[in-house]
Order: sequence, then C-alpha cells, then structure tokens
Amino acid sequence: MTVSKSSIYEPLTENTAVALTVRLQLFEDSSVLTCKEIGDGNLNLVFHIKDQLTNNGIIIKQALPYAKVIGESWPLTLDRARIESSALLKQAEVVPTLVPKIFYTDESLAITVMEDLSHLQISRAALLDGKDLPLLSEHIGEFLAKTLFYTSDYALDPRKKKQLVKQFSNPDLCKITEDFVFTDPFFDVESNNFEEELRTDVERIWNDTHLKLEVAKLKQKFLTSAEALVHGDLHTGSIFASESKTKVIDPEFAYYGPLGFDIGHFFANLLLNSLSRAEENREVLFKHIETTWAVFTREFTKAWENDSLEVFTKVEGYLEDVLSQVFEDAIGYAGVEMIRRTIGLAHVADLDTIEPLERRIEAKQTALAIGSELVKKKKEITDPNQLRSYAAAFAHQ
Amino acid sequence: MTVSKSSIYEPLTENTAVALTVRLQLFEDSSVLTCKEIGDGNLNLVFHIKDQLTNNGIIIKQALPYAKVIGESWPLTLDRARIESSALLKQAEVVPTLVPKIFYTDESLAITVMEDLSHLQISRAALLDGKDLPLLSEHIGEFLAKTLFYTSDYALDPRKKKQLVKQFSNPDLCKITEDFVFTDPFFDVESNNFEEELRTDVERIWNDTHLKLEVAKLKQKFLTSAEALVHGDLHTGSIFASESKTKVIDPEFAYYGPLGFDIGHFFANLLLNSLSRAEENREVLFKHIETTWAVFTREFTKAWENDSLEVFTKVEGYLEDVLSQVFEDAIGYAGVEMIRRTIGLAHVADLDTIEPLERRIEAKQTALAIGSELVKKKKEITDPNQLRSYAAAFAHQ
Repeated sequence: MTVSKSSIYEPLTENTAVALTVRLQLFEDSSVLTCKEIGDGNLNLVFHIKDQLTNNGIIIKQALPYAKVIGESWPLTLDRARIESSALLKQAEVVPTLVPKIFYTDESLAITVMEDLSHLQISRAALLDGKDLPLLSEHIGEFLAKTLFYTSDYALDPRKKKQLVKQFSNPDLCKITEDFVFTDPFFDVESNNFEEELRTDVERIWNDTHLKLEVAKLKQKFLTSAEALVHGDLHTGSIFASESKTKVIDPEFAYYGPLGFDIGHFFANLLLNSLSRAEENREVLFKHIETTWAVFTREFTKAWENDSLEVFTKVEGYLEDVLSQVFEDAIGYAGVEMIRRTIGLAHVADLDTIEPLERRIEAKQTALAIGSELVKKKKEITDPNQLRSYAAAFAHQ
Repeated sequence: MTVSKSSIYEPLTENTAVALTVRLQLFEDSSVLTCKEIGDGNLNLVFHIKDQLTNNGIIIKQALPYAKVIGESWPLTLDRARIESSALLKQAEVVPTLVPKIFYTDESLAITVMEDLSHLQISRAALLDGKDLPLLSEHIGEFLAKTLFYTSDYALDPRKKKQLVKQFSNPDLCKITEDFVFTDPFFDVESNNFEEELRTDVERIWNDTHLKLEVAKLKQKFLTSAEALVHGDLHTGSIFASESKTKVIDPEFAYYGPLGFDIGHFFANLLLNSLSRAEENREVLFKHIETTWAVFTREFTKAWENDSLEVFTKVEGYLEDVLSQVFEDAIGYAGVEMIRRTIGLAHVADLDTIEPLERRIEAKQTALAIGSELVKKKKEITDPNQLRSYAAAFAHQ
C-alpha cells in the first residue's frame, strides 16, 4: 500500500483547525469558536468546530496516512480524501438532501470541510437504542437508486462514464475490501477475529466449497464490474439519521463497482441489527429491508423510464432483468458482509455488545448461517420478503 | 469524439518517413532505402521501408486524426496510437512470438515503428485464397489464453491491474464498438448497410425482443466488465499468418473488457469465412474453432494452476465455472459479430465477395440466422463442436 503523502501534508491540531476555519470565513467575525477532535482516530481526524453564540457548527475531516486499526505501520493512501469529497459532490448532484454539504476541500492536506451533522445520530447507534428511524429506508432506497442509476452507462454517455471510472479508481481502499471482506474470512488466516466458541461454525465456512465458489464469483464481480459509482462501505455506521432526516457519509471506499454492492451491505447491517434484538422487535428491520428495495425499484424505474441515454432500455424485459440481477448480487453481497462482520477483522457493535456470551455466540452462529445461506441461495431468493423467513428459520434452529 | 491532437502532429510523407528511419539508425549506413505507403488509408498511414540491398524492412504506422470510412469529418483520437503500442508491448511480455516487434514509438506524432510482416499474409485473405493456415488456431488459442489470463485479476495484484485499467481506458474507440457493433445493427438507423433483398431478415432482427434483450446484456458487459486486456478487434483481418507463423496486429481497440470478447470475434470471423466456401471445404474452419478453444482451455488452465495470485483459484470448480462463463460470452459475442458484419457499417470480404448475388444473399441470410441463434442460445451451446451442427442446420434451410 503506497502513501501519496504530499510534502506539505501535516495533521491538524485543534488550534490549526480553528485557524483554518477563520481563514475560510465560514463563521461571522463575531463568532466564538470552540473545537474538539471527535474522530475515533482509526483512519481520520475529525474536528467539530462550533460557534458558542449561535451553536452553528462545521466538521473538518482529515485523512491520516495510516490505519490505526491494523497498527500505525500500515500506511494508507491520503488519496481517499479526494475520493471521499469527489464522491460527496457527485452524490449531491442527484441526492443533495441525503449527503452532507461540502464547504471546502484541500487535496494535499487531505482535508474536507463539511456540514455539521451532530444533531443526527449514527443509524447503527440509533437502531441499537431501539429507535425505529421511520424514514431511513425510504431515504436510503432513494439514495441507492439515484446515485447508482445516474452514474451508470444507462444514464451517461459512455465516454463521460469512463472518465468517472478513472477519477474514482480507488485501488488501495478496494484492496482493503478485497482482503478483509472477500478473502480472509473464508480462509484460516491471522486477521480473522472470532470467539473460540465459534470455531466449529467458522471451520464449516472454511470447508464449504460451494460457499467459497460463490464468494469467489462475488469477489471477481467486485474486482471487475464497473457498473456504477458505489459508496463502497454503506453500513449503518456510515449513515446519520433522525426521525425525519438521513445523511450518508464517509464514501472513501467509493469506486465503480456492481449495482448490488451497497444494497447488499445495507441489507446485511439491518439483518445484523435484527439479531441483536428480541424476536418480537425485529419486524421493523425486515420492513426497512422491504421498503429499501421497494423504493429503490420505484426510483430506479422512474429514472430508467425518464432519463436513460441507452437505447436498449426501451427493450421489453430489460429493466426487469437488470433489477433481478441487482437483487441477486445484493443478496450475495449481504451474505458475505454478514459473515465477515462476524468473524473477520472488523466487527459490528450490533453483535459484539450482545450479553451474555451465550446469547452473543448464538446470534453470531445465526449470522454465519444466514450469511452462508444468502450467498449460496442468492438465485433462489428473489424477494426481500423471503429474508424474514430465512432469518426466522435460522433463529429457531 | 474529441481529437487529442498535439501541436506538433503532422502526417508523415514517404520522404519524412525515410528521414525518421535514418534518424533512428534502424538500418546499416550502407542501406538503400525505398518507402511505400501501403495503408488502406481509412484510419492510419502505413509506410513500408525496405533496404534494397538486404531486403530487410520495417513498418511505420501513423494514426490519422479522422476516420475516412465515415468521412473526414469524423475526428478520431490520436491516443489510439498510444493504446496500440502499449498493448503490443504488454502482449509481447507473454506471447513475444505472436505480435510484431516494436522498435520505436512517438506519442505526439502517433507513430509506431515495428517489424515488417510482409512475408506473411493477412489471414482473412489467406483463408479466402483457400489456404488452411494449419497453426492459426493453435497460435491464436495461446495468444488469447496468455494475454487474457496474465492481465486479469487472477494473475495480477489488483492494484497493478487497476493501473492497467486506467492506462488502457479507451473511450473513443470503445464508442465505435458500442455504436457500430452493439447498437446500430439492431435498430433501423442510417449507418446500417445491407442489400434490399435482406430487408425481411433484417426486420426480423429489429423486431426480435429476445435477441435484443440478450444483445443489451452483452453490450452492458462490454461496457462494464473489466476482466482482462482484450485486443478489442480480433477478426481475421487483424492477424498475419503463414503455414508456420502467426502475428496479431492492430490492437488499437484494446481496453479492459470481458474475457470472452476476443474469442467470440475470432470464432465469428471463422464462421463467416466458412459461409464463403462450398460445404465440403468448411471443415477446416470448424476444426480451427475447436482447436482455438482446446488450446485456450489448455493454456489458460496451465497458467491458472501455475501462476495465479488469487487464492480462490484453488477452490474446486472455480476454473470450470470461469471457463464455462467465458465460452458462453464468446458464443454471444460471436453472434453479435456475425450480425453486424452482415448488415452493419463494416462488412467482411468473406461475405461481400460471394458471387453471384443470389448465393451472396443466401450466405448473408445464413449468417444472420446463425448469429441470432448464437446470441439467444449462448447458454445452451457449451462446446465448440455444436457450432458445426448449427451452421449445417441453417445452411440447409
């Protein structure tokens, strides 16, 4: 992994972050600014600058040249700040209300200055708090349909699209996904992380040739299929939400990939959350999955019918065919995401905070069983409805 | 279509071509050079420089900033000279004996100086002369297996591969394929070119929803599937051959595309040649198709087993799965190529030189029928052997 570290790059401090804010004149002269670093420190510095008088704020995000989760010795390209701000700007062209506003970017400092979203809550945390987030799936369905359709060959002149493919070439962050999502969890390697109680289930995965064959194909599609500009990491931790608002953040993994990739990741994270809940409280998550797909289908269809440049979109049956392929891929990617979030390097709080241990292990076993089933049965699962019964069947085993 | 015309670009003349040769010191000082422009003048100037004393020669190819086949008013990027020479160099890394040697390139002049292949014959012409070219398919099978495998994610670090995807981004020449291969022949548009006697057959194609749906998917795969560095225009006119030698030329359409694309084009052009022959002389072409696929499979498998970087290649059944998908795609692309070479903008001599008219029309009807069948039945045709019976069935209708 190479670092494209500019000679003038240096990490901001709270003081220099305020100085930058003043220089950019983002607040009134009379403002009284405070600054706090609120990042989790894994990959980025995140400064929250606030005017004490008006309570207005901004966020300054700066990429760090290494990944702490794996140790400071793993350098990580600063180019991801360019990818992130370019993706946010591209998404804002079609879903301006669903992404944070960008005020300023500096590529050599790997800095993006953007809207303060602290009045919202990260949707993973909100769901863990038992909140319903009634508009979450309506908004994410729209986000997915519009960001995917309008960056695809269905909507764009293919020459313009090929420029975007180059602009969003993201080899280093894709490599993280290739390794930690698609590869390591399926082999006995050191980066995996799971409770010893899961070993039998994990070994079943490592020995499941059918599963690994399907994962191999899903990985190959991730590597080669430049269908649309995908977010690349659309889990519930990448979404700020409230009762009425939704904002998708952190598209540093954005690249041209398969249409079903983001959809699958969102599905998987809703399913993982469902496993953290008592059975009687899971329905809202299945409804979210159904709504996401229904809204995606509705908005994608509308865009297809009104804004296609591709003449073949008029051919009877083509849209249905595309949607059914997208759904199949989404189910496959959902399965991979469920597995890797359970036994791979990066976990989710939804599973890891379950107490006591026995219930946590049981939930993780269910996650692995559902994940494997989704990957292997992706051609047979043709309706989000079916996920409810799959989940129920495995929860009762 | 944009012209990336450098300020210093100007077309060579026979005199300046000789001057360049002298400057490059490619011949002895004592040589007596002659120069002849031998290009067909559509897209490129091609100078054949020869030393009268030794009979050694070289070729200087220079891209023109427009395409004459469509009229001088259609500008065409000079960047294709960079693509062509880069592709030849890349191919030479794995099949040095199957491509012309490159002696010199100049990107701003869009010039490539390369090996003189005038001792060989273009394989389309040789096949039309009734020659067997006994090693053609052995060599092309090897060319396909090695150029495709070693530029794919199976063999390369995915970051290196993504660099190559960017290097070989070829929007303008891909657009020509997208329009004239995948789109126009399937709609009633002006660029098409066919005898009035074919109108009923052509309208059957334009009204065949099933066919168009499959072509739409093949086009989408062409647009999005960056599996390997494909030649992009591998018809029998892009291959020099003799009894013992084969050289693949003209990769100006090279880009990262589907593994099956080149294979399908080569198959189609062999099938088109078979239609120019009396039935009793066709067998050699079916054998060439079978040998191409057998050698491709053998060499691809060898490379897969010995040189894969991708760990999933060890999963049982994966190679068979990849090969069967490649074959299915190849059959589909072969069908599209047969149709577009019959009724689209660019024809092949194999069909157009058939006399009398009645036999020509019949051959073209057969080409359209076989082409449509290949596209629609690509999942059912799983062995090159079947092509012989398809061809026979339609020839007898």
